[in-house]
Amino acid sequence: MCSWKATSSSAAFMARAAELARLGRGTTAPNPCVGAVLVRDERIVAEGWHMRYGGLHAERECLVDARSKGIDPRGAAMFVTLEPCNHHGKTPPCTQALIDAGVARVVIGTRDPNPVAAGGVERLAAAGLEIEVGVLEEVCRDLIADFLVWQTTHSTFNIVKMAATLDGKIASRQRRPEPVSCPESFARVHELRARADAVIVGGTTFRADDPSLTCRAPGLADDFLQPYGVVVTSRLPVNPDDHVLTRQRPERTIFMTTRESARSSEADRLRGRGSSVWPLPGSAGGLNLAVGLERLRFDLGCHTSLWEGGGRLAMQCVDQGLADEIVHFVAPRILGDESAPSAYAGHGERSMAEAANFRIIDTRRSGDDIMITLRPR
Amino acid sequence: MCSWKATSSSAAFMARAAELARLGRGTTAPNPCVGAVLVRDERIVAEGWHMRYGGLHAERECLVDARSKGIDPRGAAMFVTLEPCNHHGKTPPCTQALIDAGVARVVIGTRDPNPVAAGGVERLAAAGLEIEVGVLEEVCRDLIADFLVWQTTHSTFNIVKMAATLDGKIASRQRRPEPVSCPESFARVHELRARADAVIVGGTTFRADDPSLTCRAPGLADDFLQPYGVVVTSRLPVNPDDHVLTRQRPERTIFMTTRESARSSEADRLRGRGSSVWPLPGSAGGLNLAVGLERLRFDLGCHTSLWEGGGRLAMQCVDQGLADEIVHFVAPRILGDESAPSAYAGHGERSMAEAANFRIIDTRRSGDDIMITLRPR
Repeated sequence: MCSWKATSSSAAFMARAAELARLGRGTTAPNPCVGAVLVRDERIVAEGWHMRYGGLHAERECLVDARSKGIDPRGAAMFVTLEPCNHHGKTPPCTQALIDAGVARVVIGTRDPNPVAAGGVERLAAAGLEIEVGVLEEVCRDLIADFLVWQTTHSTFNIVKMAATLDGKIASRQRRPEPVSCPESFARVHELRARADAVIVGGTTFRADDPSLTCRAPGLADDFLQPYGVVVTSRLPVNPDDHVLTRQRPERTIFMTTRESARSSEADRLRGRGSSVWPLPGSAGGLNLAVGLERLRFDLGCHTSLWEGGGRLAMQCVDQGLADEIVHFVAPRILGDESAPSAYAGHGERSMAEAANFRIIDTRRSGDDIMITLRPR
Repeated sequence: MCSWKATSSSAAFMARAAELARLGRGTTAPNPCVGAVLVRDERIVAEGWHMRYGGLHAERECLVDARSKGIDPRGAAMFVTLEPCNHHGKTPPCTQALIDAGVARVVIGTRDPNPVAAGGVERLAAAGLEIEVGVLEEVCRDLIADFLVWQTTHSTFNIVKMAATLDGKIASRQRRPEPVSCPESFARVHELRARADAVIVGGTTFRADDPSLTCRAPGLADDFLQPYGVVVTSRLPVNPDDHVLTRQRPERTIFMTTRESARSSEADRLRGRGSSVWPLPGSAGGLNLAVGLERLRFDLGCHTSLWEGGGRLAMQCVDQGLADEIVHFVAPRILGDESAPSAYAGHGERSMAEAANFRIIDTRRSGDDIMITLRPR
């Protein structure tokens, strides 16, 4: 038995495991991202994370790292953000790997919500390992927020990205194509796009900005597949040649529209170019977005959607309970025109008590701006 | 000569001096707040800050602290956020005190913009002390932002406090009196009021919220003087008994209004109760606020004003170039009603390039909210 004992450094070890876990974001779906560190004599001696779907789990990566460094894991402690799996999936159970390696203690951030994979704690305890559960639990649970959505809904994991002034404005009244946020924040948006399988915009943004919705982050892999471009609109474009999306990559472009529009000649023209036009239930002002997200996930294999505005679409996403994460950039400027478009633009009257409530999980500077990450409360 | 040499700990020592300086905020006006630490063998051995107008300067407080601990300052280094003064004001020059104490080295955050007080660096250098200037300079300059305003304008130092949702809304469309931010943020507003000599609101806030504008922070001194309550409005109240301010503390209440309203019978009634009614040049939609601020400062001795809304008044303050600091609370919620009142409510059309630009000097969590502090760019 190792001499490991609980200290305040537990949180620091788990924080490092969480940091490693995040390196897998965007490539592990539909698996969760998980990180692990091996600790001996109060020092991290090996690290690992789940890198991609089908690859080794974090615990095994960590053991491989230890062996490559000539470190014997016997008697050491492993810190892992998620309960080790106890079932044969793409890989054999991690619990067995830990037992075989002689790890003496396992510290777990949060238990696995997947009933098929769970039972790891019991298996490890039965084999005589010391177990601690719940170190940095909220952080570790936030790491698998996407996995929870994939486990419990038919939807993609939906990230709403927004960039607004202090007064919540995303553009001038005329919606001139002017930047709101700083270059560093633009770069972060491309990092978000790198994690997304689909980028979704509303019709007003599609027409005003004519976006390509591609990821231009540096260092993309050669086989990087650009996300689908999705436009939610009741007004389909008349001429596909007028828009970058339908001109440059029509076969990766999807229109979600009313049932009526989906039967129009415009729809036929778009389909003729290779784009998809999906009818959604509901009216022009309130399409049932969940239906479209289910098709994105099960027809096209999308796991993560990035919603890039405008304000009306973002508000529909929030109002329909689909905003799993909000990444909100605050630019340190004040437009001061009440008639300019809002970041979350609904039109019904509501009291503050009826506002949609979130909780802040991260705040950081992004150049001149602040990037706030939120989850539903 | 001491063996002190520049290291990365310089910044840490100066950061502590800045922290001490902030303890004087609200009580040093019209002096700046200044902090100092005495360092020997890479450790802080004494601390001091300018506590109140007329009291000892930070450097002398620090030397007093050293002596009370039996520490000889000879050969030590003093870190001070602002250049030591070199003139006889309320107190004799600090430069002489440092020379007399045998301090070997003085590290200065930023030079004194006041030409009367400056020259400290030259005096100390002539006496053979080692001098370094510019450690954490931006932080140290931000500490004296109020002092710069007092030195260079006839205005109070104006802090705009705002609490808004992610979509920049400060209330529901009906302006029902509902909280936007969390209790911790309310407590911070009372800390701001403790620093203010006047709290300013617009007529809509005055009528909708009927505020007392008093500071209810815990631990106020027995002789704490509540800030003036100032209402900027073209519509003076008809009956002073209808409002908390004019009922409970009329002699500390000031109305800034149009020249026309200042001649009305309502104005006479308010004056009869002991309130002040000041005519400002300009129209109902755009009173010249600087004129009122100059009276606040020179007629009533106010140095710091806290602007607490609503959105139209905040925007006028910004548009007239009077917002010296903005303390903006972001509540992690989305109202989603475009017709609800905005945090900074102007009505003219303007492009993003015409937005008022600020820079963020501090971001911190405030309970569920985020508190962002900004200064003009």
